[in-house]
Amino acid sequence: MIVELINTGSELMLGRVLNTHQQWLCRRLTDQGYTVSRQVAVPDTGPDIRQAVGEALARADLVITTGGLGPTSDDLTRDLIAQLLGKALHEDAAVLAHIRHFFECRRREMPARNRVQALVPAGAIVLPNPHGTAPGLAMEVRPNPFRAGKRASWLVMLPGPPVELHPMFAESVLPLLRRVLPPSGEFVCRILRTTGIGESAVQEQLDAPLRRLVEAGLDLGYCARPGRVDVRLAARGSEAEPRVASAETIVRERLGSRIYGVEGEDLETVVVRLLAECKATLALAESCTGGCLAHRVTNVPGASAVFLAGLVTYSNAAKQKFLEVRADTLARHGAVSEPVAREMADGVRRHARADYALSVTGIAGPGGGTPEKPVGTVFIGLATPTGVAVERRFNPGERETFKQVTAEQALDWLRRTLLAAAVEPARRPPDCAPDV
Amino acid sequence: MIVELINTGSELMLGRVLNTHQQWLCRRLTDQGYTVSRQVAVPDTGPDIRQAVGEALARADLVITTGGLGPTSDDLTRDLIAQLLGKALHEDAAVLAHIRHFFECRRREMPARNRVQALVPAGAIVLPNPHGTAPGLAMEVRPNPFRAGKRASWLVMLPGPPVELHPMFAESVLPLLRRVLPPSGEFVCRILRTTGIGESAVQEQLDAPLRRLVEAGLDLGYCARPGRVDVRLAARGSEAEPRVASAETIVRERLGSRIYGVEGEDLETVVVRLLAECKATLALAESCTGGCLAHRVTNVPGASAVFLAGLVTYSNAAKQKFLEVRADTLARHGAVSEPVAREMADGVRRHARADYALSVTGIAGPGGGTPEKPVGTVFIGLATPTGVAVERRFNPGERETFKQVTAEQALDWLRRTLLAAAVEPARRPPDCAPDV
Repeated sequence: MIVELINTGSELMLGRVLNTHQQWLCRRLTDQGYTVSRQVAVPDTGPDIRQAVGEALARADLVITTGGLGPTSDDLTRDLIAQLLGKALHEDAAVLAHIRHFFECRRREMPARNRVQALVPAGAIVLPNPHGTAPGLAMEVRPNPFRAGKRASWLVMLPGPPVELHPMFAESVLPLLRRVLPPSGEFVCRILRTTGIGESAVQEQLDAPLRRLVEAGLDLGYCARPGRVDVRLAARGSEAEPRVASAETIVRERLGSRIYGVEGEDLETVVVRLLAECKATLALAESCTGGCLAHRVTNVPGASAVFLAGLVTYSNAAKQKFLEVRADTLARHGAVSEPVAREMADGVRRHARADYALSVTGIAGPGGGTPEKPVGTVFIGLATPTGVAVERRFNPGERETFKQVTAEQALDWLRRTLLAAAVEPARRPPDCAPDV
Repeated sequence: MIVELINTGSELMLGRVLNTHQQWLCRRLTDQGYTVSRQVAVPDTGPDIRQAVGEALARADLVITTGGLGPTSDDLTRDLIAQLLGKALHEDAAVLAHIRHFFECRRREMPARNRVQALVPAGAIVLPNPHGTAPGLAMEVRPNPFRAGKRASWLVMLPGPPVELHPMFAESVLPLLRRVLPPSGEFVCRILRTTGIGESAVQEQLDAPLRRLVEAGLDLGYCARPGRVDVRLAARGSEAEPRVASAETIVRERLGSRIYGVEGEDLETVVVRLLAECKATLALAESCTGGCLAHRVTNVPGASAVFLAGLVTYSNAAKQKFLEVRADTLARHGAVSEPVAREMADGVRRHARADYALSVTGIAGPGGGTPEKPVGTVFIGLATPTGVAVERRFNPGERETFKQVTAEQALDWLRRTLLAAAVEPARRPPDCAPDV
């Protein structure tokens, strides 16, 4: 089954608004077994919308449009599609009553312009809009003048505001689709998130062992993000679940602890969970990451159970005052150095009375680099119940990426340490539950 | 001039990734006088990419593709386009040297697979990629077999990662376009960023005084974002600049200091600049924003000149230890209270020896709310050379939005205070230059 999506709106083409409908609809459709093969965005103008709808109807079994159902002069989708298909528009009494009621509830006069939203093309199904005035519209285009053999297509028009589109899709569109265009087969998609290994290296590890499954229909994809690479395993049909499961087993065997989580799971979420599982606490001492680490950790609901404090000691004076980094260490080695990272991690762990502490000191740039310590140089410290270690890394790139990649490395080091502590009882912190 | 955009990536079609390239590229192109008339997203498969590129070349003077230039097997754009246009690929020695150097700098072995990224179609211009391994490629398709009269088109292929695409577009693509496809007419777009006032209120202030200019062709738009509202003023043609300038004067008269900056200028950038101008320093004490404020301030290059320290005191013990918040205050009023916000701001200002300090304590949720202090309750403290003040705010919403909106309010309060200090000499901090 071929599915295409058309997003209308001049604001999209001017780049003033982010098109979130594409991802939202593609995700929901994919999860229900429908594959979107093309998405198009066009401005709010007659010729562009007409052309895009005609082309999509020539190819697809299902065409979904978003936007252009509002009451203003640039809302043209309903009219244009009725014209294109030679359908008359009639005023629907139930829709008009809903629009009137909508304004009454809000104690506002119904503007005359909104009456246009009660117009429905002949033969169309009305999809109720409990959160706004424009109903959605669905129609079977049969015969379909745009398609070879006049083969029928379904056309679904949805309103632009996400607060209206999202519930309408779940409550009206999906039930309709399951009835009139049941998905052709099961679809399973699993995404494994890895860190500490580049995109090519991930592929080198996986291509040969997964070849047989790929030949049998496994969809294997890689996506590089700052500090991580996602591996996508997807399959369709009755064998989808066992095929994806076999692939996942192979990927986990090959990449081991390079995999930190599945789709939607951030490194900070995993770290907070691991800390909670072994009842351990965390403190942070940041220089160059400037609070990025603390911000990420505290984005996780429930972080307060494990996170005690994060000290962003940007100045040398702050490093001395709050972390007891020694003036002598700063003078001899500089703020960006292994000994300072060590004293920062140790200092914040002691002062915050935490089980674990991470420290970061480096040169985020654009200024401040030297030949020995160029922009991108960073020292990450990790203090645990058994000691302090420091790693030197080099993360060239612009300032915000540097902060994110460095935070990813620090969190991953802590994650691997917590996993090791859980399997090696000797290194386990005192409070850690034995069954973790 | 007709411009079309093609975003490739199966992860886009599966709804696993948000397509941010569309907005980013449309905005930059619009600002340079190029209008994008269509954007298409297709999966990483040969037939889809070929069809989309062929159709776009049939219509457009400029076709820009994103994605598919990586080293893995689902990176097909380079190959497919060379095939489609009947161009041979050759290995470019300079590109290969750059890729080798890229891995050498990171002390990593170059995977064999990356060599494919040095392949360049005959006649293509290489667009350097200082932030990654895949260069961009640009070529004039002349004669263009897809277009009526074989009229020439330009085709530009850009890598998918934003951190590579963004600088490449600014540094290589725009200079090339200005040379080979100069924009047909002037386009001026100015966006003024406001905070502390709602979208409807902004519109009520501006609609009447701007009516005459809108009738004369000014494009006026509003866009609400977490914590701010953007006002867009745009015009095209020979009168574009004076028209937008007149509109800007009116908007500035009406909204005054509600406007904190122009497009691309964040509140933290403005705050760091104001602090630097009056040679003042800043410290932060955060509880519920969890480092979000420090992270934003340290995203600004040069922040180290004004920012001394940010203490993320999540636990009560950390508030006592690092900020000298009194146990008695915590016990009597709770951590989320006016007196605690006051002691936090005062404590961090004294300990970090800063001129100004902000503090934040509140309930980010989803847990922790009470009838008197529901989720979203927050106290913001501001300590200046002349005293400490606290504001209570209510920011319901999910956790990350709560953090961002609260950070926006805190930064805006500091911004308005710094502006007032600059115009009122009596309240000016001792070091502040008299001409600021």
